[in-house]
Amino acid sequence: MSYNTFGHLFRVTTWGESHGPAIGCVIDGCPPRVALEEADIQPWLDRRRPGQSKFTTQRQEADQVEILSGVFEGHTTGTPISLVIRNTDQRSRDYGDIATRYRPGHADVAYDMKYGIRDYRGGGRSSARETAMRVAAGAVARKVLGDRISIRGALVQVGPHAVDRTRMDWEMVNANPLFCPDMAMLPVWEDYLADIRKKGSSIGAVIEVMAEGVPPGLGAPIYGKLDSDLAMALMSINAVKGVEIGDGFASACLTGEENADPMRMENGMLQFASNHAGGVLGGISTGQPIVARFAVKPTSSILTPVPSVTRDGENVDVMTRGRHDPCVGIRAVPVGEAMMACILADHLLRHRGQVGNQEPVVL
Amino acid sequence: MSYNTFGHLFRVTTWGESHGPAIGCVIDGCPPRVALEEADIQPWLDRRRPGQSKFTTQRQEADQVEILSGVFEGHTTGTPISLVIRNTDQRSRDYGDIATRYRPGHADVAYDMKYGIRDYRGGGRSSARETAMRVAAGAVARKVLGDRISIRGALVQVGPHAVDRTRMDWEMVNANPLFCPDMAMLPVWEDYLADIRKKGSSIGAVIEVMAEGVPPGLGAPIYGKLDSDLAMALMSINAVKGVEIGDGFASACLTGEENADPMRMENGMLQFASNHAGGVLGGISTGQPIVARFAVKPTSSILTPVPSVTRDGENVDVMTRGRHDPCVGIRAVPVGEAMMACILADHLLRHRGQVGNQEPVVL
Amino acid sequence: MSYNTFGHLFRVTTWGESHGPAIGCVIDGCPPRVALEEADIQPWLDRRRPGQSKFTTQRQEADQVEILSGVFEGHTTGTPISLVIRNTDQRSRDYGDIATRYRPGHADVAYDMKYGIRDYRGGGRSSARETAMRVAAGAVARKVLGDRISIRGALVQVGPHAVDRTRMDWEMVNANPLFCPDMAMLPVWEDYLADIRKKGSSIGAVIEVMAEGVPPGLGAPIYGKLDSDLAMALMSINAVKGVEIGDGFASACLTGEENADPMRMENGMLQFASNHAGGVLGGISTGQPIVARFAVKPTSSILTPVPSVTRDGENVDVMTRGRHDPCVGIRAVPVGEAMMACILADHLLRHRGQVGNQEPVVL
Amino acid sequence: MSYNTFGHLFRVTTWGESHGPAIGCVIDGCPPRVALEEADIQPWLDRRRPGQSKFTTQRQEADQVEILSGVFEGHTTGTPISLVIRNTDQRSRDYGDIATRYRPGHADVAYDMKYGIRDYRGGGRSSARETAMRVAAGAVARKVLGDRISIRGALVQVGPHAVDRTRMDWEMVNANPLFCPDMAMLPVWEDYLADIRKKGSSIGAVIEVMAEGVPPGLGAPIYGKLDSDLAMALMSINAVKGVEIGDGFASACLTGEENADPMRMENGMLQFASNHAGGVLGGISTGQPIVARFAVKPTSSILTPVPSVTRDGENVDVMTRGRHDPCVGIRAVPVGEAMMACILADHLLRHRGQVGNQEPVVL
Repeated sequence: MSYNTFGHLFRVTTWGESHGPAIGCVIDGCPPRVALEEADIQPWLDRRRPGQSKFTTQRQEADQVEILSGVFEGHTTGTPISLVIRNTDQRSRDYGDIATRYRPGHADVAYDMKYGIRDYRGGGRSSARETAMRVAAGAVARKVLGDRISIRGALVQVGPHAVDRTRMDWEMVNANPLFCPDMAMLPVWEDYLADIRKKGSSIGAVIEVMAEGVPPGLGAPIYGKLDSDLAMALMSINAVKGVEIGDGFASACLTGEENADPMRMENGMLQFASNHAGGVLGGISTGQPIVARFAVKPTSSILTPVPSVTRDGENVDVMTRGRHDPCVGIRAVPVGEAMMACILADHLLRHRGQVGNQEPVVL
Repeated sequence: MSYNTFGHLFRVTTWGESHGPAIGCVIDGCPPRVALEEADIQPWLDRRRPGQSKFTTQRQEADQVEILSGVFEGHTTGTPISLVIRNTDQRSRDYGDIATRYRPGHADVAYDMKYGIRDYRGGGRSSARETAMRVAAGAVARKVLGDRISIRGALVQVGPHAVDRTRMDWEMVNANPLFCPDMAMLPVWEDYLADIRKKGSSIGAVIEVMAEGVPPGLGAPIYGKLDSDLAMALMSINAVKGVEIGDGFASACLTGEENADPMRMENGMLQFASNHAGGVLGGISTGQPIVARFAVKPTSSILTPVPSVTRDGENVDVMTRGRHDPCVGIRAVPVGEAMMACILADHLLRHRGQVGNQEPVVL
Repeated sequence: MSYNTFGHLFRVTTWGESHGPAIGCVIDGCPPRVALEEADIQPWLDRRRPGQSKFTTQRQEADQVEILSGVFEGHTTGTPISLVIRNTDQRSRDYGDIATRYRPGHADVAYDMKYGIRDYRGGGRSSARETAMRVAAGAVARKVLGDRISIRGALVQVGPHAVDRTRMDWEMVNANPLFCPDMAMLPVWEDYLADIRKKGSSIGAVIEVMAEGVPPGLGAPIYGKLDSDLAMALMSINAVKGVEIGDGFASACLTGEENADPMRMENGMLQFASNHAGGVLGGISTGQPIVARFAVKPTSSILTPVPSVTRDGENVDVMTRGRHDPCVGIRAVPVGEAMMACILADHLLRHRGQVGNQEPVVL
Repeated sequence: MSYNTFGHLFRVTTWGESHGPAIGCVIDGCPPRVALEEADIQPWLDRRRPGQSKFTTQRQEADQVEILSGVFEGHTTGTPISLVIRNTDQRSRDYGDIATRYRPGHADVAYDMKYGIRDYRGGGRSSARETAMRVAAGAVARKVLGDRISIRGALVQVGPHAVDRTRMDWEMVNANPLFCPDMAMLPVWEDYLADIRKKGSSIGAVIEVMAEGVPPGLGAPIYGKLDSDLAMALMSINAVKGVEIGDGFASACLTGEENADPMRMENGMLQFASNHAGGVLGGISTGQPIVARFAVKPTSSILTPVPSVTRDGENVDVMTRGRHDPCVGIRAVPVGEAMMACILADHLLRHRGQVGNQEPVVL
């Protein structure tokens, strides 16, 4: 079962509500003797932390991670790694409205439909705060993957404004708070988002995540395909409405000739001339970069009133005051990277389990 | 683990290679006392069967399903349901080329990279033939879901030609072999595909699947969300490169005002004024229609030679003679419906397990 | 996978080492709207807590449980319940010997064989301290099961001294710190254990756990049988070497006539004249009391030196100074009850998932 | 979930009813490139096959196994292995009595309680016929384990008659149809069972299974311990009521000094002076032989009438005519071996997944 757990050999279970005493996760199945300390995790959390630009929520959380188990003298022991972050910004306030009025486009009505009860404080379990633990788990996964595998993410579209792929420069991504890889697009986004924010509105976005150095052979057909596990993982991120691999939806317009990535032996190594496949064929990695993109809808917290209902079945108009996140897609970048890292770590172990470390027979 | 299994309470395990003696599946966890016989499954298989138009492969398989267990006197017993289809079109032939040369864009190189061995006959395990068992399992899932839940699929884009959504007529879908819901588009597709086929080329497509009558509350956050499980399930279908829910990638261009589906009480019932969410909020069904789309790449079996390599590391140019499928997206329609049915059946049982049949508290 | 997790719909994941900062567990899949607060859990922890008699380890831990998530305004929300207990008795000491010398009969050599690293402080992950979280989870499981199902455990054998079953009185179990149900046996055990303790030795034991009021139909053949899940759960408790259901190993000496539990209808209800089966037939509960027993070996911490080796492959004789637990079987009583509670809660939800709440058809 | 599946990386799913058209299993996760053909499986099935002595059921089944997938040119491909055995001894007969009358001590009443329906022909899903597929899967598991690991089973007790362990000779086990390792005990059993059979009665038994050559480090604490997985697996065999590892229940009478297996370095290798632990410490294999025993109750099919009820709630006395199995424990020997093989294969892959093939650090 996978209510709050994902992964098979490298398993991540998260818990915690937005305004409870803490959030946390348990990582089970991590290989032993991997060097790990809190300082390996904290920088990734800092990168995701809110309040780093005016375009993300102003909630102030130190997001200080603590390792409670599974690490001894600076190395993993093979036993479960428990990570916890105390919630510090639990300002006492009146939640009366949120408690009874459903925000259109938000999960709160659905939680009530399912469970008949919900912790409405700050979105409770459905809050994007949960994604901090994904980032923490992703930091551990990166240690398992080692230095040969690099995972990078970038924002590639904000509202109608997509980056120009010929200008994409991965080196610039971490040099700006919008994770923008196209320096010509950056000021456009800044102006656009300033306007969205001023209006009390919000806007969607598209994120791209790429993993390089992934060995061939990862992925377990038919129902544990690398790309279907990635689709599950990315779609599980808050507000995500679409996932694609390689050329994705654009594949619908391609002919077989356009789509086939030509192969050639060069210096005794298999080389592909293109990567329409996004590094996955038949659910199995080919050694090419793994490329995934996902679309994030705009947050439902807006200042414009929208028709809604109360828990008691009364018609009301709902608007959301308080801290606004004009584009939740920005902070989804490190989350997407983390999910890619966790899925790859899991598949690395699963592949090793079934097939072993033996030299590949092919080519 | 989920190599060849998906689902949790309603679990489907498939097995079999394209040119082995048979393909089959085991459905475990099906509720008892559900009326079921082979005649409930066969029509769905017939709908998917190849060779029904000139635009799908001409492979001729009766695809006659046999129930080997789990059904007694016309009803399920709660024990595993074993379904099998004998492969009848195993024409003896020379597979020499396919055995050693990799088709660009095809999974065969990846299987060799992973396992160091593969059954190359007709694509072996990676053949779309496996999807027949998904359709069979989907037929059982439909019986579990009952008549109140209807699941329908349609082809909505072929190459650059998308249907006009204002003309969409679900009633027409089963009246044409292309599962086209737009009668004005049908002749365009027919001409276009005839041309693709004549050239020995192939083309991608987009499929839409919709489930109506789904009760609210299905889906198990955070890592068993209804939409992330759908994303996994649809992405696992052969050749799929993208999945979206509701407005999907178009959400990136929406503002919060545009995206929020307004709610109102009408005659004591909660009504939504729109369905940008595609029936899922926070990973949980809301009672609205569940809407998913997925993109299928063109098949790699084309007559144009593409640079490739052999198993021994020799550069060659590969073209595929034989039965061609100009648009594999057509036959993906019933497969997409089946995956939707299986995922919903699983979530129906999972929800009942955790929450029970009790009356919803909300509204 | 189930490294540190058990259960399927009611899932328990534990983490933590004996001398780390804390131990904890995450309970996922708990039904919503179950009344739950820390006061529901603490009494069961207090019952297991060490240092309550001279026959258990003198380690002093308050074992104060804290609920970190999944509960809102006194009720479960359906989201994961995170429980944590801070370790308070981490006296700073020199672990030099334990770090390098393996105790014969203890898990420390095996952990090193597997992982090549271990947290040797107080046994690390292999410490019986982990069982506190089983007891905490069991307390939540009892709330899920409700008042109609009662679960009780007792010590029924200490070394060679078994209780006289004709004298068994379940009411007395909680009236003495040895969980002894046979008041004539109690002084025998006390004398026997005082002697074992004086010698710095240890002794094995047998525990019996019984669940009454369990509805018929729980258990999922063939590989999710109620009794095989119980066997897994009880065998997973530290030091357990044997598990039996109903007549257990004594069944080997029974004839078919002796073993068959006769059935009769009485006042419209099915009644069994005996319970050799221990409440389970074909892996499914029959409505009779579920009866399980398990054997616990003596602890390896004894004052007599035993030949052993060091981590560097040097021959040494090892004896264990410090806090001794003459009979770890005593504290295994509440742990066995807790495992029974968790397995039953899981099967209750699993059964409801597959079969629903519908009225039974039979009888 | 694990209704009809067990194992995690080496997964076995079985299906089929005693008198349905066939029984079968799907083995998923088997490593690729393992030499496998039907001739590797058939001898193990022949060994379990009924009708080989007068002390097992006279049902005549060829039990001819067919591989339907997952094997190509004599080697596994890493894809699911489907095995099937057609049921040939489905004599048409009147099942009227069995259909409505419950046999005391048999699973049929429990299946009806759970599912409200059952295939009563020959016991349906609850028939020991299912164990044929365990034996088939075990044969595949043995190929995965390789020649360095040997697994043997023997009958060690029949009714009150236990073998004398000082006379145990594993070489004799396969030389007699009772799998007896004590040649002095064999004639005692033969006389005893002849008498049981003549009376139309039945008797219980104890089976021992031992695995030698198992590498240290297998087993995944805390809830995937090697011994708890073995307990689950052996308890899931039909009619099993107890499982023990190493000294098992006798451990309750041991002191710490008696129970501790002394260790010494000899010729640079770690040696144990005894094996009370049965090869498992803390749930992890130590390199010593893995020793497990399980108790089997007598079959419920006896000629003596026992009080029972009908499906309609009428009191009746039930006796079972037809083919009798005076001691089902005999045929449980190859089944126990097979379960040991499957569990070890699974743990071998799981260990390799988490820890890899690296050289052990310890000693």
